[in-house]
Amino acid sequence: MALIVYSGGLDSTVLLHLLKSKNEATEALIVDYGQKHKKEIDFAIKNCQNLNVPYNVADLSTITHLFGNSSLTNKNEEIPTGNYNDSNMKSTVVPNRNMIMISVATARAIAIGTNVVAYAAHSGDHAIYPDCRNEFTNALDSVLRVCHYDEITLYRPFIDLNKSQIVKLGAELGVDFKQTWSCYKGEDLHCGKCGTCMERRQAFQEANIPDPTIYQQ
Amino acid sequence: MALIVYSGGLDSTVLLHLLKSKNEATEALIVDYGQKHKKEIDFAIKNCQNLNVPYNVADLSTITHLFGNSSLTNKNEEIPTGNYNDSNMKSTVVPNRNMIMISVATARAIAIGTNVVAYAAHSGDHAIYPDCRNEFTNALDSVLRVCHYDEITLYRPFIDLNKSQIVKLGAELGVDFKQTWSCYKGEDLHCGKCGTCMERRQAFQEANIPDPTIYQQ
Repeated sequence: MALIVYSGGLDSTVLLHLLKSKNEATEALIVDYGQKHKKEIDFAIKNCQNLNVPYNVADLSTITHLFGNSSLTNKNEEIPTGNYNDSNMKSTVVPNRNMIMISVATARAIAIGTNVVAYAAHSGDHAIYPDCRNEFTNALDSVLRVCHYDEITLYRPFIDLNKSQIVKLGAELGVDFKQTWSCYKGEDLHCGKCGTCMERRQAFQEANIPDPTIYQQ
Repeated sequence: MALIVYSGGLDSTVLLHLLKSKNEATEALIVDYGQKHKKEIDFAIKNCQNLNVPYNVADLSTITHLFGNSSLTNKNEEIPTGNYNDSNMKSTVVPNRNMIMISVATARAIAIGTNVVAYAAHSGDHAIYPDCRNEFTNALDSVLRVCHYDEITLYRPFIDLNKSQIVKLGAELGVDFKQTWSCYKGEDLHCGKCGTCMERRQAFQEANIPDPTIYQQ
């Protein structure tokens, strides 16, 4: 049984379905870290409700001001357009966000007696996000194993997959991709121009799976 | 320069003075994790102000309900009296608290460009608190080194000291121990009967240093 860190994005929605298909989704932790828009969170809540997975929304918006100038959380910073490989995409890093989310998820796992924390980091994230890399998730797994009386493990089945492989898996699992949100901007439609939109679109193309997302451009 | 996780308790106050004596205290992070009383936090703020150390109070009281039945945060759970070696003291464990605090401190360190996070765990804490043990802090240090572009390290100079050695060090550094708070109960005076009060009193006795604390018993 696993406590899943769940954003409502494509990757973690596929992970949620994967856990559900194995009857291993104990509870989801949805984190409001002060991201500028709440569309991901809305989708996350809806998907948990549809799949009958209990969930909590952890409100960490109270500490967003500590995170500095990330363009995902700071109203004065504009979200960049372009590919993840572009250096301007670094402004989308929220410092140590994944460690914070996994720490809280682990606390919750301990509280409810679950010994697996599941997390959907994948290989495509690694270029600009240090806290998605194997060396990070391996080290984090080592911490979870000793943070409490009993071992907890970090389940990260996508760590060596790219996003198109996750799309393929999601299609096999019957995921309704329309019910997932990637775009950093959070307008009515996916913008199609920010790093995560470009990656999303490319993943469907590479997987040769119809992309149900409507992009502005 | 170091970002210190600072509670207002005896140990972290000595650490704050130690950093200050070396001119290495960049900023303090004081965490409100929903502990039942705010006396520690009040002392922490006062001490930062007196030492001219910038500080933030991270309000995590929004997620306390996720932590379950810890007697430090859950109003329905009574704080036990007795020695830390007593099994009933386990109710004072707040699941994964230290990892959460250090995760947030690390985010803040990244945001302000500091590459050391300082933390006052000591050897006396180890019996019932897994997240104060060497294996935990060593693993955590390994995570911090890879959580961002540049290495961050976890400075834990007290990890092999007991509390009486910390008291001795504090006395050498001129710490006013009256301006620190240990008691889990948070009444007008230290109760003298909870695990942390008993440890505090014993530490002064072993260090052969006058204890300025007024205990109820």
